[in-house]
Amino acid sequence: MTQAIDATTHHHTHATFDKLKCKECGTEYELQAKHVCEMCFGPVEVTYDYDALRQRVSRETIEAGPNSIWRYRPFLPVQTDNPIDVGTGMTPLVNARRLARQLGLKKLYIKNDAVNMPTLSFKDRVVSVALTRARELGFSTVSCASTGNLANSTAAIAAHAGLDCCVFIPADLEAGKVLGTLIYNPTVMAVKGNYDQVNRLCSEVANTHGWGFVNINLRPYYSEGSKTLGFEVAEQLGWQLPDHIVAPLASGSLFTKIHKGFQEFIKVGLVDDKSVRFSGAQAEGCSPIASAFREGRDFITPVKPNTIAKSIAIGNPADGVYALDVARKTNGNIESVNDAEIIDGIKLLAETEGIFTETAGGTTIAVLKKLVEAGKIDPDETTVAYITGNGLKTQEAVQGYIGEPLTIEPKLDAFERALERSHTLGRLEWQQVLV
Amino acid sequence: MTQAIDATTHHHTHATFDKLKCKECGTEYELQAKHVCEMCFGPVEVTYDYDALRQRVSRETIEAGPNSIWRYRPFLPVQTDNPIDVGTGMTPLVNARRLARQLGLKKLYIKNDAVNMPTLSFKDRVVSVALTRARELGFSTVSCASTGNLANSTAAIAAHAGLDCCVFIPADLEAGKVLGTLIYNPTVMAVKGNYDQVNRLCSEVANTHGWGFVNINLRPYYSEGSKTLGFEVAEQLGWQLPDHIVAPLASGSLFTKIHKGFQEFIKVGLVDDKSVRFSGAQAEGCSPIASAFREGRDFITPVKPNTIAKSIAIGNPADGVYALDVARKTNGNIESVNDAEIIDGIKLLAETEGIFTETAGGTTIAVLKKLVEAGKIDPDETTVAYITGNGLKTQEAVQGYIGEPLTIEPKLDAFERALERSHTLGRLEWQQVLV
Repeated sequence: MTQAIDATTHHHTHATFDKLKCKECGTEYELQAKHVCEMCFGPVEVTYDYDALRQRVSRETIEAGPNSIWRYRPFLPVQTDNPIDVGTGMTPLVNARRLARQLGLKKLYIKNDAVNMPTLSFKDRVVSVALTRARELGFSTVSCASTGNLANSTAAIAAHAGLDCCVFIPADLEAGKVLGTLIYNPTVMAVKGNYDQVNRLCSEVANTHGWGFVNINLRPYYSEGSKTLGFEVAEQLGWQLPDHIVAPLASGSLFTKIHKGFQEFIKVGLVDDKSVRFSGAQAEGCSPIASAFREGRDFITPVKPNTIAKSIAIGNPADGVYALDVARKTNGNIESVNDAEIIDGIKLLAETEGIFTETAGGTTIAVLKKLVEAGKIDPDETTVAYITGNGLKTQEAVQGYIGEPLTIEPKLDAFERALERSHTLGRLEWQQVLV
Repeated sequence: MTQAIDATTHHHTHATFDKLKCKECGTEYELQAKHVCEMCFGPVEVTYDYDALRQRVSRETIEAGPNSIWRYRPFLPVQTDNPIDVGTGMTPLVNARRLARQLGLKKLYIKNDAVNMPTLSFKDRVVSVALTRARELGFSTVSCASTGNLANSTAAIAAHAGLDCCVFIPADLEAGKVLGTLIYNPTVMAVKGNYDQVNRLCSEVANTHGWGFVNINLRPYYSEGSKTLGFEVAEQLGWQLPDHIVAPLASGSLFTKIHKGFQEFIKVGLVDDKSVRFSGAQAEGCSPIASAFREGRDFITPVKPNTIAKSIAIGNPADGVYALDVARKTNGNIESVNDAEIIDGIKLLAETEGIFTETAGGTTIAVLKKLVEAGKIDPDETTVAYITGNGLKTQEAVQGYIGEPLTIEPKLDAFERALERSHTLGRLEWQQVLV
């Protein structure tokens, strides 16, 4: 990349990450903006000096850090002591007693990134890391290929950091996701096609323009941000790992990076070694990883997405095979649910726990339910379900599937009549009476 | 209230709050569900034993507490050690460098409750306190009169806590606020009238049904939750107070309780004594407090609201005179802005800081700008602007006032043409060409 300034390829004294390395053939590279191995076209990943990390990091140093993902800075691929910190991360780990009872589990937690900062999805984690690194590498324009949440996050954090921003989205996204990007005034390219077409176009643009695409040429740095969803759960459980986690699968990156996060905490001695089962959730209308899992394949056959769960509708998932591998080697599962089950999942979580999630979260809850019913999650397992985005962004999905208000005159007797009849008839029928 | 169980009117050993007291005539009451003085009809407020607080609380005990409003539990009117905690509070205090530069201020912070948990407004603070107290007082059904955010919060937190819930809203609310309530499956009464009519109806219902209305009979407990917006800012500034704060005015309660929070921290020695200027923001279409301030009146003349800032559209504000008093005695101001300025305020905050707020926040930013331009905020003052709700809930307000995406085919040359023409023409004109 032409924007890369010199300093960025040198090792700083305090950096704990040391190179890029191909996940397939092991070829090593300097710390530049590069995501594909020149030898074998495999994905490259950031590596760390874990001996240095073990020396530098303790539970106490982390607890004394900022109330954001940056408390884990030594595990993240940035050199600066001044990362872009808008309060991202440290979202609640909610003890979901009412949902647990409903499902028949003893100990269930919701990791609630529906309220992540600033743009209400886990993408704020990866973007905070990517844009901090983009600045270090000298980029002045940042970009992304997005199913919606990533565009929201890139546009917002770029605005805060004063970086130019151009995002690419499929043209048929939910209104809340489009408006929730435009408000920050980036350039928005709405591409007539699905996410996989958007992504292909962006790969071409990344090769011809000198922009920092957070999930293309900056992907090795960006994806490391998802490890914080593993770190935080471990810390919030009192420095121990859960027995089982359920998370949505889009590209598969989030899933594999939560796993990497747990492994790193074990490696540097922050938590005891323990096997954690990893189960993945997909929407039936876009379930290439679940299909491969079910059929025992170790390769992914791309599909054309057709589901209301647009934020996870990736038909050709970049990290699909790695996600498959994690599920298999941890004795987990990958399951899919249909759109009706996704809506029921959204409602179930809202009614039992007061958490309003988007379609991806509905997918996760519906798969959680399905796995419990199939005996694939043991009631005694301490289970964590990852909720990755907010329901206010995908209002279309539930419109028509929830109740309606009872419209009344501002008078006590009007209220009393409405209340009485709602009790007698049940609320849904009463609404029909009103109409 | 018939539901009030016996234990709740006795003093617990560890309770630091001791009674209810009329703000006007000083008559004292037991700690029950009561908001109006029987002697003079003045509002009643919770009082504390500040000597006990000074003994029990230090910066260290607070910092060692949970990462939520409950780190300040001794300052809140609940007895339990198990409050309803869904991660509410401890929202970021963002150092708003880019907005400060644009406005010509040296040190500006945004207290960002647009990402408060669980429902993205400051109301989660007051509702967490009110429902914890409602449970202590034995209520099984909770309710509220709401302009939207309060209904979202009451319905969500009641769902989490397993309380029955019935909320009252004006029938013409924004779609996101209605759906963002219905998803939790409470009973929703949509009243044909404005908030003041909703509120009157609810006062009648509170007298006839044994429900806990968070902002009526539970109001003395509920309103104390807003003090945490003062506490957090003081703690996040490194245990010191700012010079000037700007906050929106609806009922006036938030404003006066931030002031009470600062005063309590001074009283128990957590921060040094200091005079903080309090400036309030109203929408021109509903500005009874700003009018009284401008005209030098010490009483409020109710108005009929007509503004896009529906969440602060209270024509007959319960705590209006107290808000007036706070602004005057701290040498602050109360200003109003019109709907166009409110939209500009929303956009300005989004484009400079990456924070997407609802109309109330747009009002606050527009008033902040107006006060700076009028020389009523000194560039040297450390200023905090309170952003109280999220823009995804009031999408209607900005629709049509922001850009549109550039729609392109998934091809590199289509992208290049779009980019080039967007640079040449400027983005808005280019959109017209596309149409």
